[in-house]
Amino acid sequence: MTHREHGEILVINAGSSSVKFGVYEFDSLEPLGHGLLDWAGSTRPGRASLTLRPHGRPPLEAELEAPDYRSGVCEAVQRLGKAGMVGANLSAVRAIGHRLIHGGEKIRAPVIIDRAMKETVRGFAHLAPLHIPAGLEAIEACEATMPDVLQVGLFDTAFFADIPPVAYLYPVPYSWYRDWGIRRFGFHGTSHAYCAGRAAEMLGRDSAGLRLVICHLGHGASATAVRGGVAVTNTMGYTPLEGFMMGTRSGTVDPGILLHVLRERGLSVEELDEALHKQSGLLGISGISSDFRRVEAAADDGHERAQLALGMYAYRVRAMVGALAVTLGGIDALVFTGGIGENSVRLRRDVCDGLECIGVRLDEERNRTAGPDEDIAAPGSPARVLLIHTREEYMIARETRRMALERAGER
Amino acid sequence: MTHREHGEILVINAGSSSVKFGVYEFDSLEPLGHGLLDWAGSTRPGRASLTLRPHGRPPLEAELEAPDYRSGVCEAVQRLGKAGMVGANLSAVRAIGHRLIHGGEKIRAPVIIDRAMKETVRGFAHLAPLHIPAGLEAIEACEATMPDVLQVGLFDTAFFADIPPVAYLYPVPYSWYRDWGIRRFGFHGTSHAYCAGRAAEMLGRDSAGLRLVICHLGHGASATAVRGGVAVTNTMGYTPLEGFMMGTRSGTVDPGILLHVLRERGLSVEELDEALHKQSGLLGISGISSDFRRVEAAADDGHERAQLALGMYAYRVRAMVGALAVTLGGIDALVFTGGIGENSVRLRRDVCDGLECIGVRLDEERNRTAGPDEDIAAPGSPARVLLIHTREEYMIARETRRMALERAGER
Repeated sequence: MTHREHGEILVINAGSSSVKFGVYEFDSLEPLGHGLLDWAGSTRPGRASLTLRPHGRPPLEAELEAPDYRSGVCEAVQRLGKAGMVGANLSAVRAIGHRLIHGGEKIRAPVIIDRAMKETVRGFAHLAPLHIPAGLEAIEACEATMPDVLQVGLFDTAFFADIPPVAYLYPVPYSWYRDWGIRRFGFHGTSHAYCAGRAAEMLGRDSAGLRLVICHLGHGASATAVRGGVAVTNTMGYTPLEGFMMGTRSGTVDPGILLHVLRERGLSVEELDEALHKQSGLLGISGISSDFRRVEAAADDGHERAQLALGMYAYRVRAMVGALAVTLGGIDALVFTGGIGENSVRLRRDVCDGLECIGVRLDEERNRTAGPDEDIAAPGSPARVLLIHTREEYMIARETRRMALERAGER
Repeated sequence: MTHREHGEILVINAGSSSVKFGVYEFDSLEPLGHGLLDWAGSTRPGRASLTLRPHGRPPLEAELEAPDYRSGVCEAVQRLGKAGMVGANLSAVRAIGHRLIHGGEKIRAPVIIDRAMKETVRGFAHLAPLHIPAGLEAIEACEATMPDVLQVGLFDTAFFADIPPVAYLYPVPYSWYRDWGIRRFGFHGTSHAYCAGRAAEMLGRDSAGLRLVICHLGHGASATAVRGGVAVTNTMGYTPLEGFMMGTRSGTVDPGILLHVLRERGLSVEELDEALHKQSGLLGISGISSDFRRVEAAADDGHERAQLALGMYAYRVRAMVGALAVTLGGIDALVFTGGIGENSVRLRRDVCDGLECIGVRLDEERNRTAGPDEDIAAPGSPARVLLIHTREEYMIARETRRMALERAGER
């Protein structure tokens, strides 16, 4: 297989109870296949389901022994090799790229993972208590199965390392920042960074001077203001609960409501956490589903609270786009990405209805018929509206390759 | 005194530990004097300080017996009569207007206060636990000292009675609204309503079709989007903690921060409440003062955290103006009012820096030299920028007079 002669890149995205794998041809960054290891997918304890999708071949389903996270990843990686998704029984893997959610305040670029870096990452565990330990387990599983292969870490927060203090500080007692590190970090950075680059490419412009608002709208959702390729702020903050109304998350609400329900309505902190993370957003308002498509379908059938949920969702996205646009002093393009952003014609139409005053004019017809990656603004619209298919995994592969080449160059 | 021949209107603004009085000539609504009863102003328990400022005469200071709220107000009202601020020893009072902070979901206009209305208002006590009981005490003090005089109540929330569900609902479990009544109410309504009317007057336009964003920036701060004279939303919500960074209040922050400090940092709900209400905002960031003027002075002297506090304050006002502007689909005028809005040249300049993209162009020179009520936008600015001196007490007097005349007409 000629296209594999220079080996592959393995991308690992370690979630709290599942792991996504991606295999990319090293030279071309062409995707060769994907995999999903899922503990929730198995009904038996200590076992997990593995689905492999080698490109151009039928998918493989298996259930495997996975008594703990690390041994599950070890086993899954071996199967990737056996299934031929990675050549030469894993020995063709030239570099491994890990998605690591949180890089704290300082990390602003991909890192090469060594012993010291693992300790550094471990220090961020309190900031993402489900994801960081999972990411470290995945790293150690790779050390065990593929010793000596270069491992690279990409942090979702890295894209936000340069946001200014006026945006990252909260107007709470200053000691909360100084002593406890409470500040805005921002999330979905890999997606936002990819889209920022892709938008410049689509517009045929250099990033310099380009002002973008990027709406990543999926089950989680955030928007980023980008100036000259650099993130200025993100609507998520210290935690991914801030900002937009999401599938089951409330996003930003009056902090007085939290105090009220704790004090007057007898909710415990755990119950409040559960309510704001799991029973709010689209699900909380519609009472039907956290899935935007299901809420849309119900709204089309005349379900009032589903209509209300969609109305609130668009209202809040629009308001936040306005807030970010003036923070940038105006925008050159508005970007929609993520499952909802890429697929909901209605959402994009509703969000843009009102944004004419910041130069955004949607082309109704293009909005209905276009897919990613296309410009759906009306011909004379001062600001462009871009529909971009986000490619976080590809972005990780690309950066991992860049790091691998840099390192090879250094030798 | 000819100008008093048709009697006076007494305005009462009952705060949690102080009461403000205003006396207005009934026909002309000319102010005749003001008073302040302040329990915090006296060092002895059971006593309060009273300051009377009859217009055109020297102020009077006194300390009086005020073992409880009601008897304090009774005594203060008697003194108003004795001091000649109200003619004929109180019998010239034709109507009394009370500022009542909270009118719940339904009340959208001034009300005449009778026994049934007092019960209705009592039902709102949980929504404003410091102010509603104080207002009721003041009403009963007036019943005791001036029986048979018409009493009118104006609710700060009334101006927001027509905001739509997409704006007043929070993306939390729907039952929180249905069962507990948790929704956006909005605050500072009397000020916003006055400014909305005054802006239309200054622009020489009918309210119909006019789109305004009004920033009331004082110790508390909120902004309202107004379309056609009707409030569309307000940045304060279920409680006055939401929205802008204020003197000591945080305004909106990541709700995940509240959960975090409760769970991981050992704060009690009471301590968190205290931190967000009393130790945040300008005070929390600057570490110096909650007073904008003092923070400005420190910033001028090079104090970094004071500069940071001012930067954050303006950043957050600007972002919210952008959010409200797109909610309205664009604005015809931006209004600054309240102590900070009316007086800080720097704040207005910093807020407007970035708003050019929504048609706001400030005239730097006018901004520096103008006072209320003036238009400080640049000559060609598509949206006007109005500096308005808010007159909440006058607004209450005016509406009280209107209610008194309507009632007289009905007879």
